[in-house]
Amino acid sequence: MTRIANTPEPPYYAVIFTSLRTAEDNGYGLMAERMTELAAQQPGFLGMESAREALGVTVSYWDSLEAIQRWKQQVEHREAQRLGRSEWYAAYRVRVARVERDYGFGE
Amino acid sequence: MTRIANTPEPPYYAVIFTSLRTAEDNGYGLMAERMTELAAQQPGFLGMESAREALGVTVSYWDSLEAIQRWKQQVEHREAQRLGRSEWYAAYRVRVARVERDYGFGE
Repeated sequence: MTRIANTPEPPYYAVIFTSLRTAEDNGYGLMAERMTELAAQQPGFLGMESAREALGVTVSYWDSLEAIQRWKQQVEHREAQRLGRSEWYAAYRVRVARVERDYGFGE
Repeated sequence: MTRIANTPEPPYYAVIFTSLRTAEDNGYGLMAERMTELAAQQPGFLGMESAREALGVTVSYWDSLEAIQRWKQQVEHREAQRLGRSEWYAAYRVRVARVERDYGFGE
């Protein structure tokens, strides 16, 4: 991703997804692209920021906890989660957080 | 960074720092290493996760808003923030969030 997410005034919600990959690709790249595209179509989606080195850090932003819950339960995303645990990730952590304030410069 | 942060049970706080670099290094690499080392020495620091591609995404975890405020005001860190705006970053955004729940697998 090459842009800082253009999120609204807080409060809103963030899902911080941190992961360590396995050695195999097994369709990971395609899945990651598809999930990025699919997340952006969900109701309540506000933006996403992502980078990967040894560790992958992806933060997606949402307008409510309900929107996050719906995205977690989305059928194609559930299948990606299942394959994530069996194929693509050696470990991951998901943190759901409420953004209280933000500031910055540029963009 | 190569590890998922070993954070305690929520609630705790996250600072999501997303940035776009300028083309120049000008000491950026050394500063980034030093800030990682220095953050880890602050009272209330719980962990950090970071990756950079076109976008840099760094999440640091803290036990309180007061700990985040102290870190923001730390003298050497303030100088890094100043140089960040003048030299190293084309744009950045800082989001302060309260982590409400987390889950994962592995590690």
